[in-house]
Amino acid sequence: MNGADALIETLCDNGVTACFANPGTSEMQFVAALDREPRMRPVLCLFEGVATGAADGWGRMTGTPACTLLHLGAGYANGGANLHNARRAGTPLVNVIGDHATYHRQFDAPLNSDIAGWAAPNSLWVKSAETADEVGPLAAEAVQASFGAPGGCASLILPADSAWNEASAKGPVLSRPVRAKVSDADIQAMARRLKAAAKPVILMGGSCCGEAGVQAAGRLKAAGFRVMTDTFVARLARGAGRFAPDRMLYFGEMAMEDLKGVDLMVLVETVEPAAFFAYPSRPSLLVPEGCEAVSLGDKSIDGPAALVALADALGASEAAPVEPLDLPAAPTGGLDPYKIGAAIARHMPDNAIISDDAVTAGLPIFQSTRNARPHDWLMLTGGAIGQGIPLAVGAAVACPDRKVLSLNGDGAAMYTVQGLWTIAREKLDVTTVVFANHVYRILGIEMGRTGAANPGPAAKRLLDLGDPRIDWVSLVGGLGVEAVRCATAEEFDTAMAHAMTTPGPHFIEAVLG
Amino acid sequence: MNGADALIETLCDNGVTACFANPGTSEMQFVAALDREPRMRPVLCLFEGVATGAADGWGRMTGTPACTLLHLGAGYANGGANLHNARRAGTPLVNVIGDHATYHRQFDAPLNSDIAGWAAPNSLWVKSAETADEVGPLAAEAVQASFGAPGGCASLILPADSAWNEASAKGPVLSRPVRAKVSDADIQAMARRLKAAAKPVILMGGSCCGEAGVQAAGRLKAAGFRVMTDTFVARLARGAGRFAPDRMLYFGEMAMEDLKGVDLMVLVETVEPAAFFAYPSRPSLLVPEGCEAVSLGDKSIDGPAALVALADALGASEAAPVEPLDLPAAPTGGLDPYKIGAAIARHMPDNAIISDDAVTAGLPIFQSTRNARPHDWLMLTGGAIGQGIPLAVGAAVACPDRKVLSLNGDGAAMYTVQGLWTIAREKLDVTTVVFANHVYRILGIEMGRTGAANPGPAAKRLLDLGDPRIDWVSLVGGLGVEAVRCATAEEFDTAMAHAMTTPGPHFIEAVLG
Repeated sequence: MNGADALIETLCDNGVTACFANPGTSEMQFVAALDREPRMRPVLCLFEGVATGAADGWGRMTGTPACTLLHLGAGYANGGANLHNARRAGTPLVNVIGDHATYHRQFDAPLNSDIAGWAAPNSLWVKSAETADEVGPLAAEAVQASFGAPGGCASLILPADSAWNEASAKGPVLSRPVRAKVSDADIQAMARRLKAAAKPVILMGGSCCGEAGVQAAGRLKAAGFRVMTDTFVARLARGAGRFAPDRMLYFGEMAMEDLKGVDLMVLVETVEPAAFFAYPSRPSLLVPEGCEAVSLGDKSIDGPAALVALADALGASEAAPVEPLDLPAAPTGGLDPYKIGAAIARHMPDNAIISDDAVTAGLPIFQSTRNARPHDWLMLTGGAIGQGIPLAVGAAVACPDRKVLSLNGDGAAMYTVQGLWTIAREKLDVTTVVFANHVYRILGIEMGRTGAANPGPAAKRLLDLGDPRIDWVSLVGGLGVEAVRCATAEEFDTAMAHAMTTPGPHFIEAVLG
Repeated sequence: MNGADALIETLCDNGVTACFANPGTSEMQFVAALDREPRMRPVLCLFEGVATGAADGWGRMTGTPACTLLHLGAGYANGGANLHNARRAGTPLVNVIGDHATYHRQFDAPLNSDIAGWAAPNSLWVKSAETADEVGPLAAEAVQASFGAPGGCASLILPADSAWNEASAKGPVLSRPVRAKVSDADIQAMARRLKAAAKPVILMGGSCCGEAGVQAAGRLKAAGFRVMTDTFVARLARGAGRFAPDRMLYFGEMAMEDLKGVDLMVLVETVEPAAFFAYPSRPSLLVPEGCEAVSLGDKSIDGPAALVALADALGASEAAPVEPLDLPAAPTGGLDPYKIGAAIARHMPDNAIISDDAVTAGLPIFQSTRNARPHDWLMLTGGAIGQGIPLAVGAAVACPDRKVLSLNGDGAAMYTVQGLWTIAREKLDVTTVVFANHVYRILGIEMGRTGAANPGPAAKRLLDLGDPRIDWVSLVGGLGVEAVRCATAEEFDTAMAHAMTTPGPHFIEAVLG
């Protein structure tokens, strides 16, 4: 058993059974060892941003880490933006970052860099296995560390000689950390405050947005308390048969209007809400004047259990208001995001997974699918676009029996378009939609809000994607995924109906501009 | 004048006149200010790795920094791998990294991250302009810092409020640092050592590989001294009418064989050579036993001047051996890298610029173009593939009168394929070639060398790009660049002849597998 064997066996023993990889020379021992450990599923990604986003998608769907395999510091950097999103999502994830042999570092060969320095801002845990014998124990430690709480990235640096040298043993199986329970006294105190408030709101994030938390939130709503989620959460259980909490609005002034008169904000697995960006003369902190914000616990607690306890303490009934199944009629005429949302709502099957990197098209589709069949909605947690396709890769590998729908702005999709090749290669049941408005639409909106003048010719040129127009059908076909272009609601509805009933990769270019 | 105006005017005053950008909301003031400063050329890139590689290409060709415009820490990360290559190339480059407004950071909004932490490993200089008044002076300081010596990345963090607030003045024009001269005494001493050595070699890197350094190297060769370059240098002046120094071989054992018996290695703007990677039982340090390695100066010196002084001290003649123009016959039959090299040698015009990210196809083409018309060869300095297309973008923007040829392995090209859209948009005179062997060929070679067993099915799956095969003509056509596929030497020669005589973007898929 060499160090690479010890690593992969230890990872598998600890439940890490998918590896999203873009290896180089220093990772060849790991690659070779994959042939000796059938429990680990290797998935090749043609760019590291796909690998890290896929690992995030896997982690969000399974609650356990996948690993990435990255080529030294530069490979890590390529995956960094989606690791930022994963950090914000609280997703457990283990990065295996290859490095030069320990004795080779001193020569500062071209690929040498400060790997630990690169990894630090986005990692809960960074260690380097300086000998083959350290590999197994550190691998187990990395998996355990990735659970947090809250979850996040653990980055294990693997020098080439630690991989190829003989290892005396693999690492142990370590227990998964248990999330903290909120004390009964704190629950009771919070229940009293909620009852005493004139206009309270409960704001939840993190793991509260899964099925159990949403159900408890419904009970709180039935007891008369408004429950909201953060604007962007890692995973939201929603659709027919589930309670639909409100969602904190994206633009600060709208959020403040929505929260007018609120005198108590109870935070569960989240913090005081803030605007996504700052703008001159607009609020940053989205807590109304005179409103008290109090936390029941941050992302390290068991939020769903806290919500259940709070509902019990408030004497909330077990029956919560849930959304009825209410599928819209077939949309007709010119295509827009609401009609796209209607078509999606009509056709997506039970337990679909939505990977949302749709930017300006996202909210209309989110609203349109409120009464669709039950599904999970995965959001852009860290604001780094280019998450939508990679996340879908990982979700589909994790959940082969569920339909995955990846929704992407055209600007966002271009970031990690390489992921479509992996979808084709692995024959994943992913339907990718790109909203081709041929512009960074959100920036046209944001520009005025930041106090910048109306864009002149030079500025417009930095927001425009229409010269030349990307031919998505051609581009995506080149990556091995069959693609269709839809310019009307009828075409889109037909394409969606086909994609949702036919397993395997599909791609739809939705022409919006 | 707001902070963004102060920034752009100061950059232009200090010679920074190209901005490779992928902006977001926090950069909108910079974008708006571009309309007020016509000296700055903005170039939109659809992924930050394209922007940073393009800035590297600009810097290598002009010797002055371009700037990037990046969206917070995640945007920086996306550009990180090509910044690693730029650092290794010693290219002056200024990153402008947008950030949240200073007062907004405390709320830790989704895109918040440790920007300075991300930037540190790859930057000579990192500062944040915490007020609008600091922007201009820091911009001037950043430009100056980017020159080194040696050059590298200066990273200026620009909080949104420092951009939108009123600034009292722009920054100064700062002088460009002058590189250190090697003392006459050191030159004379080195000349004596060279004369006393039985089998000396002079190894040069950095700025020595430009026209002046290569010419001086030719004089040293004429005086009887072997001159070599590092395996990978930022920019090498070569072709007909120029001296052709030897190149340090990539594989360590071959390099050691090549250096057998060398008793003195004189280093100029480089360090003791090391293998690109470590392998079990193979040498890391590529200095033969008993050979003394002595440095005339690192990358901070004026290497070309030192070489001229050394040639003078050795009494070398002014006339140096130069390569004759010797163009090969038209290649015929099945396509391989040597025939591709022949076709390129035949057709590339005077002063072409080659951006080489061709991996296993690179060396045969390099060898085949030794006697082609004079040209500059830009190499993969940091080993992070995905440099070839972006670097060509920047070189073409910098040198609109020169033909740029971008050579890419298919695996490498997929990293930053988005750059082809920018080539189309800016109508750059770039011919991009992708070598479609549908495999990470280099890894197949490296795998055995690292002591890993022959790849089994799982390992093979991580080296293979052929399932599905990427249809490059379709993919690249989707990005707006006309593309042709060539499966024979005749087809390739015809396509190259056309591309080299017709301005504007061209793309050739060279079928190699």
